[in-house]
Amino acid sequence: MTAPSDRTARAFGLICGDMMPGPRNTLTDVPGVRVGHQSLQTKTLNTGVTAILPAGGNLFREKVPAAVEVINGFGKSAGLMQVEELGTLETPILLTNTFGVGTGINALIRRATGTVNPVVMECNDGYLSDIQGLALSEADALAALEAADTDFAQGNVGAGTGMSAFGFKGGIGSASRVFGLDERSFTLGALVLANFGRPGDLMLPDGRKPHPGDLKAPDDGVPQERGSVIVVLGTDVPLESRQLKRVARRAGAGIARLGAYYGNGSGDIALAFSTAQRVPHDVAADFLARDVLAESRIDELFKAAAETTQEAVLNAMIAADPMRGFKGHRRRSLREWLESRAG
Amino acid sequence: MTAPSDRTARAFGLICGDMMPGPRNTLTDVPGVRVGHQSLQTKTLNTGVTAILPAGGNLFREKVPAAVEVINGFGKSAGLMQVEELGTLETPILLTNTFGVGTGINALIRRATGTVNPVVMECNDGYLSDIQGLALSEADALAALEAADTDFAQGNVGAGTGMSAFGFKGGIGSASRVFGLDERSFTLGALVLANFGRPGDLMLPDGRKPHPGDLKAPDDGVPQERGSVIVVLGTDVPLESRQLKRVARRAGAGIARLGAYYGNGSGDIALAFSTAQRVPHDVAADFLARDVLAESRIDELFKAAAETTQEAVLNAMIAADPMRGFKGHRRRSLREWLESRAG
Amino acid sequence: MTAPSDRTARAFGLICGDMMPGPRNTLTDVPGVRVGHQSLQTKTLNTGVTAILPAGGNLFREKVPAAVEVINGFGKSAGLMQVEELGTLETPILLTNTFGVGTGINALIRRATGTVNPVVMECNDGYLSDIQGLALSEADALAALEAADTDFAQGNVGAGTGMSAFGFKGGIGSASRVFGLDERSFTLGALVLANFGRPGDLMLPDGRKPHPGDLKAPDDGVPQERGSVIVVLGTDVPLESRQLKRVARRAGAGIARLGAYYGNGSGDIALAFSTAQRVPHDVAADFLARDVLAESRIDELFKAAAETTQEAVLNAMIAADPMRGFKGHRRRSLREWLESRAG
Amino acid sequence: MTAPSDRTARAFGLICGDMMPGPRNTLTDVPGVRVGHQSLQTKTLNTGVTAILPAGGNLFREKVPAAVEVINGFGKSAGLMQVEELGTLETPILLTNTFGVGTGINALIRRATGTVNPVVMECNDGYLSDIQGLALSEADALAALEAADTDFAQGNVGAGTGMSAFGFKGGIGSASRVFGLDERSFTLGALVLANFGRPGDLMLPDGRKPHPGDLKAPDDGVPQERGSVIVVLGTDVPLESRQLKRVARRAGAGIARLGAYYGNGSGDIALAFSTAQRVPHDVAADFLARDVLAESRIDELFKAAAETTQEAVLNAMIAADPMRGFKGHRRRSLREWLESRAG
Repeated sequence: MTAPSDRTARAFGLICGDMMPGPRNTLTDVPGVRVGHQSLQTKTLNTGVTAILPAGGNLFREKVPAAVEVINGFGKSAGLMQVEELGTLETPILLTNTFGVGTGINALIRRATGTVNPVVMECNDGYLSDIQGLALSEADALAALEAADTDFAQGNVGAGTGMSAFGFKGGIGSASRVFGLDERSFTLGALVLANFGRPGDLMLPDGRKPHPGDLKAPDDGVPQERGSVIVVLGTDVPLESRQLKRVARRAGAGIARLGAYYGNGSGDIALAFSTAQRVPHDVAADFLARDVLAESRIDELFKAAAETTQEAVLNAMIAADPMRGFKGHRRRSLREWLESRAG
Repeated sequence: MTAPSDRTARAFGLICGDMMPGPRNTLTDVPGVRVGHQSLQTKTLNTGVTAILPAGGNLFREKVPAAVEVINGFGKSAGLMQVEELGTLETPILLTNTFGVGTGINALIRRATGTVNPVVMECNDGYLSDIQGLALSEADALAALEAADTDFAQGNVGAGTGMSAFGFKGGIGSASRVFGLDERSFTLGALVLANFGRPGDLMLPDGRKPHPGDLKAPDDGVPQERGSVIVVLGTDVPLESRQLKRVARRAGAGIARLGAYYGNGSGDIALAFSTAQRVPHDVAADFLARDVLAESRIDELFKAAAETTQEAVLNAMIAADPMRGFKGHRRRSLREWLESRAG
Repeated sequence: MTAPSDRTARAFGLICGDMMPGPRNTLTDVPGVRVGHQSLQTKTLNTGVTAILPAGGNLFREKVPAAVEVINGFGKSAGLMQVEELGTLETPILLTNTFGVGTGINALIRRATGTVNPVVMECNDGYLSDIQGLALSEADALAALEAADTDFAQGNVGAGTGMSAFGFKGGIGSASRVFGLDERSFTLGALVLANFGRPGDLMLPDGRKPHPGDLKAPDDGVPQERGSVIVVLGTDVPLESRQLKRVARRAGAGIARLGAYYGNGSGDIALAFSTAQRVPHDVAADFLARDVLAESRIDELFKAAAETTQEAVLNAMIAADPMRGFKGHRRRSLREWLESRAG
Repeated sequence: MTAPSDRTARAFGLICGDMMPGPRNTLTDVPGVRVGHQSLQTKTLNTGVTAILPAGGNLFREKVPAAVEVINGFGKSAGLMQVEELGTLETPILLTNTFGVGTGINALIRRATGTVNPVVMECNDGYLSDIQGLALSEADALAALEAADTDFAQGNVGAGTGMSAFGFKGGIGSASRVFGLDERSFTLGALVLANFGRPGDLMLPDGRKPHPGDLKAPDDGVPQERGSVIVVLGTDVPLESRQLKRVARRAGAGIARLGAYYGNGSGDIALAFSTAQRVPHDVAADFLARDVLAESRIDELFKAAAETTQEAVLNAMIAADPMRGFKGHRRRSLREWLESRAG
């Protein structure tokens, strides 16, 4: 069995771009960011919740600058309108299945002290999990928040438990890049919930095009009903929300390099936040002192956003084990395909 | 006591614009549109749900063209992203309090046959109602949907039960306009959930500026913590979603004519739909035959959107009775103010 | 004859809102802002150029934060896309007639040192001026830039020479508001090029609705072919571009309070800039230190944007003299109407 | 010397996606579309104009549905705001250098019968051509319009004469895809003005990463000051402007697959139009009968938009000859690189 550290794109020689990954090669390389999962697996369920905490403390009292890019808006994610208007994020981000959004909202409201804007993003895991049951509870959401840590699993875990991508098993994946600005080291990380892409469309960085049908083992080959990919980007570079929106837009470049084209039924959404400076809810003074990146230096972040998004999706697919789920539906693993081709 | 038919802006000689209202002067003058309320009033609660059904039948199978204009995006409404992307509405619209959004989403999902995009819009009634209790249930949402009819109450009812506007009592209001196109009569109607505006900012169409403090009766004069106004516009004119977005934008003109300026903490959102032609979920052919309004004829709808939004807010405030609610907080009624000035 | 100082809305008792105007009650109350005009009047021409210099020095080397709000995008203004993307303005703003945009662009390019993004905004003065002649030259644009000063005329001057509004003569108008933040005084000013509104739609702040047909003198009563209003807002409050966009959106509230509803054929555009801090083109360090307004303090600017836009349009119309122009077309003056009603 | 038919990506075995190209594999495979060039080459100039005529007849009287997607808005293109608002294109599209926009606008105005919205898009060819001279005249723009035909050259021609891409010579390129809908054959074509991408970032569809420095011949290796890519997509599928905007957004996927990430200084803009039905300027009736594609069929167009954009850029670079231009600046040709690797 492959060890977790070998279940990565890099372990298979798949390199996205030329920038250097951080020590964990995950979103939590950005100082202060934590990720937690709660998975639900029963005879009919393969679902869960993933919580991303951009920073410590009370996020409502001390918000983080944020922005959203809707690459394709076929989706039910909540809370994005206010992020767009005010340029701040004031709750942790919950990722879950499409029908878990209402419950996720309620969980974030109930644990907050003020009238928060809950951000809950989703993909549809209805192929491998009985989504109609609305099985997720507020307790599940709270458990994911409680579990948040700098170390977290990838693949079939949390919100990624029952997801699919390019006809293979999808899930949660992550990657990061480090770079220098002003003689200091900074990090940009991505975490994806990958549930998109048609079988046969996947392109690897080396030009190969894996198809789940290439594997001899049985595969039902049924394309997913509808996909989606959620990309969360975090960085410790000080950016204003307009700049964060520009960074988020480059997640679309990473998705495209995988062979996807933002299909009609795919909710492809990127949210970016910066941890460099908090935005206080209650302010004593009328003005806030801020640092912002000089615009001419932003290409490094654009490049990192594209590279980490691409790599995070590959990491999700390579970390994911094959699955037989709801109604006997199956998904093969990209890792199996890579191993079968390895010589 | 004033009869319901006298509790309107027109009964007090307040005329918004010069177009002609429909027979009911409400959104349900648009054929097929129905509105239902469920109100919750206890010692601490003054809240509820209002359901707007744009058309009969299964909205998921037979959608209506729609569009959203975010005038000020400080708000927690759900489902707007997909309306923006696909230009269709596939569930009834629920209006409720800020903390009822999650429950509203779950109610719409559970009653649907497919993976619907639930549209739930909100204002914060926390001044007159104990919003922290998350008191609304899915059953309340279903009751509002069940109650939908062409006749519906205005003022302190449904989602409007505990709302405030310009320091007076706010609530649910409606208005409509009829006009001719191609030798036929068409209608545009507005329904608002009015919970916005600072005391003293209200401007009547005749130039008067009523202030709740002008009334001798006790008033605590506390400005609302944060406001919001939701405007739903419906029409039987065939419009594509780009045109509907242009129409929705003119709701902002109606709001501004009341003296508001889309305050920072106010979630001011307009959603417009057309009932003229349905958009099938499952299509046999690859192309749909559509009628669309010639763009050069659209000014009549722009004017109607501005006039009905302005009048619907006045109708909400004039229909609303004064209220003493949660923690003894009070709101006076604009109708009292108008009556006190009437002779 | 009315003295210039009496040709204002305030001189006729027309007050927009309750905030206090600055000493000049114009955009140039914002320190550093200058405005210049070049007018062209011949037998067939009534046109010109107005230049707005947001700040001194080289704007390309030291940009100002800026944002654009397209209220209704039927128009030919140039340079707005880059302002939206980068949040900065790097040339003076030229206002001119619709067919003068290309020439305005060339003038701004030729006087610049780098690859500037020229911002040129326009209205169509074709009713009172022979616009088909493309009469404006680069020299005219340069003359307007050269003439820039803190004192500038309003009414039939510069780009406003041949404009119309609500069936009356339109033109250039301005207004300002002062307010306190952090124990200092700040200013927001508006300059408008007013060429919009249908006869009979104008609403004065006191509730009166003047119609050019009310005047006994001859008027051809022909509605303008198509309108437009350009609103330029400047402030010395430090704002990031997202905040400036929110401020610009409130210009729409001021326009709506005048009785307009952003007509189909009207290019209604607002651009806002802040002079508080420059954005250097060439930066030595990777980060810039910035002050930004705490978001919860922004309502004062929203209110000022709505009030100054409304008042600037009235000032344009009241400063404007009546005109008989191209093909004998005429426009009456709102000042005449007000004087005829003065008792 | 390579024959023109051999100067294509396909001739070198580079295949983008799996859809079938049209007979010419250019934008003019869409019936009615024509393209014309006017090139200016002197000792210091390598510039020009390219005209795209979406359809025959008077475009102002009979417009075409259109939409714009601003992928990265660092650019000076004109006319996009009105396309966004009204969803129509009413002039031919001119492509030219950054400083030719004003002149292009004037040329389109002067040849039109009404108050047209001129669409002129640009890239900066200042590395290989003396852009500061503002050398292009209105006559050059008219000559490009006059030259429009279904056959047109690619590479160093028209607006593409002096452009660069990924450190190689850039220019004009085109590609098309055909597909079936409703038992008929339809086409989507792309034409690009390619002037973007950093040396070393280019990724070929087969996974190779060509760098101009790989060629032994002298290359000055100076990265371009700033890039840009303009993508024009045309189709004979009936689409409303909202759908065209969705299609245009997929041009970004094609750009990303080439290795670009929409750099800060790159004006990356896509405009899409449909020739299926005209939108009359003057209408007798109040409603227009339209066919529109069922949304669930749109993926074929999304895929075609991504594939043709990617291939059109490669075709531009492979058709382009190497150039020594202004100040002795040089660009190598990707075709040379491919030939040097061909064995």
